[in-house]
Amino acid sequence: MTISRFPIPELAELPEDIRARILAVQEKSGFVPNVFLALAHRPDEFRAFFAYHDALMEKEGGLTKAEREMIVVATSAANQCLYCVVAHGAILRIRAKNPRVADQVAVDYRKAEITPRQVAMLEFALKVAREPVEIGEEDFRKLRGAGFGDADIWDVGAIAALFALSNRMAHLTAMQPNPEFYLLGRLPK
Amino acid sequence: MTISRFPIPELAELPEDIRARILAVQEKSGFVPNVFLALAHRPDEFRAFFAYHDALMEKEGGLTKAEREMIVVATSAANQCLYCVVAHGAILRIRAKNPRVADQVAVDYRKAEITPRQVAMLEFALKVAREPVEIGEEDFRKLRGAGFGDADIWDVGAIAALFALSNRMAHLTAMQPNPEFYLLGRLPK
Amino acid sequence: MTISRFPIPELAELPEDIRARILAVQEKSGFVPNVFLALAHRPDEFRAFFAYHDALMEKEGGLTKAEREMIVVATSAANQCLYCVVAHGAILRIRAKNPRVADQVAVDYRKAEITPRQVAMLEFALKVAREPVEIGEEDFRKLRGAGFGDADIWDVGAIAALFALSNRMAHLTAMQPNPEFYLLGRLPK
Amino acid sequence: MTISRFPIPELAELPEDIRARILAVQEKSGFVPNVFLALAHRPDEFRAFFAYHDALMEKEGGLTKAEREMIVVATSAANQCLYCVVAHGAILRIRAKNPRVADQVAVDYRKAEITPRQVAMLEFALKVAREPVEIGEEDFRKLRGAGFGDADIWDVGAIAALFALSNRMAHLTAMQPNPEFYLLGRLPK
Amino acid sequence: MTISRFPIPELAELPEDIRARILAVQEKSGFVPNVFLALAHRPDEFRAFFAYHDALMEKEGGLTKAEREMIVVATSAANQCLYCVVAHGAILRIRAKNPRVADQVAVDYRKAEITPRQVAMLEFALKVAREPVEIGEEDFRKLRGAGFGDADIWDVGAIAALFALSNRMAHLTAMQPNPEFYLLGRLPK
Amino acid sequence: MTISRFPIPELAELPEDIRARILAVQEKSGFVPNVFLALAHRPDEFRAFFAYHDALMEKEGGLTKAEREMIVVATSAANQCLYCVVAHGAILRIRAKNPRVADQVAVDYRKAEITPRQVAMLEFALKVAREPVEIGEEDFRKLRGAGFGDADIWDVGAIAALFALSNRMAHLTAMQPNPEFYLLGRLPK
Repeated sequence: MTISRFPIPELAELPEDIRARILAVQEKSGFVPNVFLALAHRPDEFRAFFAYHDALMEKEGGLTKAEREMIVVATSAANQCLYCVVAHGAILRIRAKNPRVADQVAVDYRKAEITPRQVAMLEFALKVAREPVEIGEEDFRKLRGAGFGDADIWDVGAIAALFALSNRMAHLTAMQPNPEFYLLGRLPK
Repeated sequence: MTISRFPIPELAELPEDIRARILAVQEKSGFVPNVFLALAHRPDEFRAFFAYHDALMEKEGGLTKAEREMIVVATSAANQCLYCVVAHGAILRIRAKNPRVADQVAVDYRKAEITPRQVAMLEFALKVAREPVEIGEEDFRKLRGAGFGDADIWDVGAIAALFALSNRMAHLTAMQPNPEFYLLGRLPK
Repeated sequence: MTISRFPIPELAELPEDIRARILAVQEKSGFVPNVFLALAHRPDEFRAFFAYHDALMEKEGGLTKAEREMIVVATSAANQCLYCVVAHGAILRIRAKNPRVADQVAVDYRKAEITPRQVAMLEFALKVAREPVEIGEEDFRKLRGAGFGDADIWDVGAIAALFALSNRMAHLTAMQPNPEFYLLGRLPK
Repeated sequence: MTISRFPIPELAELPEDIRARILAVQEKSGFVPNVFLALAHRPDEFRAFFAYHDALMEKEGGLTKAEREMIVVATSAANQCLYCVVAHGAILRIRAKNPRVADQVAVDYRKAEITPRQVAMLEFALKVAREPVEIGEEDFRKLRGAGFGDADIWDVGAIAALFALSNRMAHLTAMQPNPEFYLLGRLPK
Repeated sequence: MTISRFPIPELAELPEDIRARILAVQEKSGFVPNVFLALAHRPDEFRAFFAYHDALMEKEGGLTKAEREMIVVATSAANQCLYCVVAHGAILRIRAKNPRVADQVAVDYRKAEITPRQVAMLEFALKVAREPVEIGEEDFRKLRGAGFGDADIWDVGAIAALFALSNRMAHLTAMQPNPEFYLLGRLPK
Repeated sequence: MTISRFPIPELAELPEDIRARILAVQEKSGFVPNVFLALAHRPDEFRAFFAYHDALMEKEGGLTKAEREMIVVATSAANQCLYCVVAHGAILRIRAKNPRVADQVAVDYRKAEITPRQVAMLEFALKVAREPVEIGEEDFRKLRGAGFGDADIWDVGAIAALFALSNRMAHLTAMQPNPEFYLLGRLPK
């Protein structure tokens, strides 16, 4: 299992800000998720990608952090992206404090242990992922009816759009998830 | 024709760097492309998007700038993204100095006035756009056989991936192309 | 850019009626659209095709001539037919007196500068083009509700059906649009 | 079971040439196939359709008449056109003198009692019917390798294209096959 | 036309219960349907398959035997399974006492001579066959509204599911229908 | 989370052989997998299903038991069947002694930690699951080239076919996996 089809630079060769980010995530998680290594040989793209990621995934707002991860897992499964399903599945289990929900959302969100509001959210996210040309006023009406404000709808759509990019980069690079992700969040504390 | 389903801030309200970028593009083009206005109410996402865009579209490398725009037009047409087909079609006509090539690439690249190398490039870009899970070693072999280095292949894939995001944001916002784009690059100088 | 994969006869060799038709269109347009040349080596099919075309496209009725061309452009784009999108896009721009509408209808009719009635018309035409087995009474109800009489509905469906044929002949022959079409109707008079 | 969603004129009201054609087919077949009645209220389209039909289906050439009907049955089944599968299935059984071949070609031509040359022919015809944009030089090479001349390839493609139109008209009108067709050609003489 | 890609055992070599079943069907039908021969080299799978078949197809209940065969024909046609369309088409004609209904249901059930209740039944069966993940409460409501009890809905779904298996085994083995099936039930008694 | 949309009988009401089977699996696993409960109200179908299952999944032969489970997981994921992906994913982890392989095979077998022979096996199994009409001699040649005998190819195809049935029953019943399955086989012994 290699990390990527493309070069993985040595940590020492990296620009300072990128090395710092990688060391910080290693400190926090205990390992370096492969996506940081796979993108590092392109510093400008690395910076843009994680800036975009943080702007959508780390912000406050109408969506909980678990809900943001649900969108990632559901749309990444639709794109058959192994890295994102496994890595963000782990984060989803931790944030939702539910060891089953990631597998459920990845395979069939209709049968997952989630709320009707979250079902509506994932239905829209999957439309953005798979047939975005079909998005129309009717979709906005449904989401508003389920309690989403317009800023929330933007977040749902934008997260699905960002992982449309991310899933494609993972397929381009044949990126592999770190073994640590598979078990994270599955055991009771 | 409205610009977006979401708020368009006043120029005066924008952070300085974003206002500066918008004024610069207006200066250069004579108008403000709607994508700048549609993303401006989310400054962090605006900055990340254009940083990503510039990293891939403005760089030097094995792909010409016209070729980069061909990838945008072909994949955006596959996603039925009106804004990107019209706006980047204009840029493609200008960069390729060919008033027909954008319409050709948008409808059916197999019949376009492009080189066999460009056909191979667009075939791969469309695979990234439409069925990225199918990308395999055979695709890399074909592209290397057509003269692309690995850094070029990354560029082709990453541009297709970025516009997978961009096209989805355009559909989410119902973004309209500026009327100016339709005619740009169609007339002999 | 060749006109067709199949033989293009000399004008002098053609039956009188076909030569006359070709000379007439040349007189009117200033050039001979390639479809006339590509079909000419099969005189009986040439005659049947243009008889069918004229019966549907030149007649009076509930649809304007611009609307008839919209159907051609939308369904030909769904079939990725370069010849028909470019040639009929030109005619649509001229008949609708709108230099943007053909590009809009080709990429995404939902975002085009057209009326709700025309949106309903194109939705039905695209169903005829793409999944005709799904046509049902509900579609007829919708169109009648949008103001179409049954003779108009026949016209919408029959035009979509004729260009299902036409698009396939263009792909079979690898027919190229004449360069003149690309700019027609784009400039203010 | 009505014949069509649209008007069926009285025989006496029809233009002389159309009435004559209908009476001739009734004389020959013992009944009037519904397609003649469903198109009759549009005399110009009726004339163009049958002129096109005769030009492709009644001509001499490299394809036998049974092979022409195979193309109709296979592509009409792909379009789920009940009228054309049943009516042309009957003609195919008669022309091929094989009471099973129409059902086989309609369901799965790969398992039909036909020659490898006919398999290649139907594979191409179905590509014209379903994904014509994919037609390329490789398809022509295969057909030439299977013994088809270019005029034959035109015929295969043009018949598939004509029934792309015909199948759509049948779905538009909800045309029903005459009961007589179901049994024709199934019994040994 | 061979019966299967896999071995066909001699009758004398078969376990007693399997030989008895084959002789019984031969006695009743006058020939041995090929499915019995194609599965016989795997006695345990043979027994399980026909036990499943009899449990669903021979039972009493809210569905008539003709309706059970309609489900088989419609879903097998969606899977392009020649054996099942032809063999069960024959049984459907006999049980429905209608020589046309099998061809109609195979090509386009919407235009078949069946009741609205049967249209609803086939719509659900085709959903089970083609996109089972989409089954939801709304489908159950529709079927109950059309007069189906829950035990009937199970039967509709289970028959579609069993022939999802059966159609795949027929494609795996390249199973051919016996010639006798093509004409069965087509002639008035 | 209910077990099924359909009735779940009391253990005491069940026929003796079915109760015995359920008690045996409970004894062995520590819990009763929901599929046993969901099918129990139809004893004949229950017996046929598990007889088919055992005939294919418990037998000796050219495929290991882990390989048989891989086929189940890959095709069930293609059908988005939550029950089968989670329950058979657990069995696959145990039989393959690999805590990651089930997630990998479910999302994208091309990137799984499996052998080239197993990749070829899953490619064929997915063809049986998704487009069985396309199965041809070329597929058999590839599998034989990868070391599979004809009896093994039957097993691959038949397992994919059986779970085409099983996945559809799980969607029909809205069957939920038991919570125990999610963690099974994920921890080192």
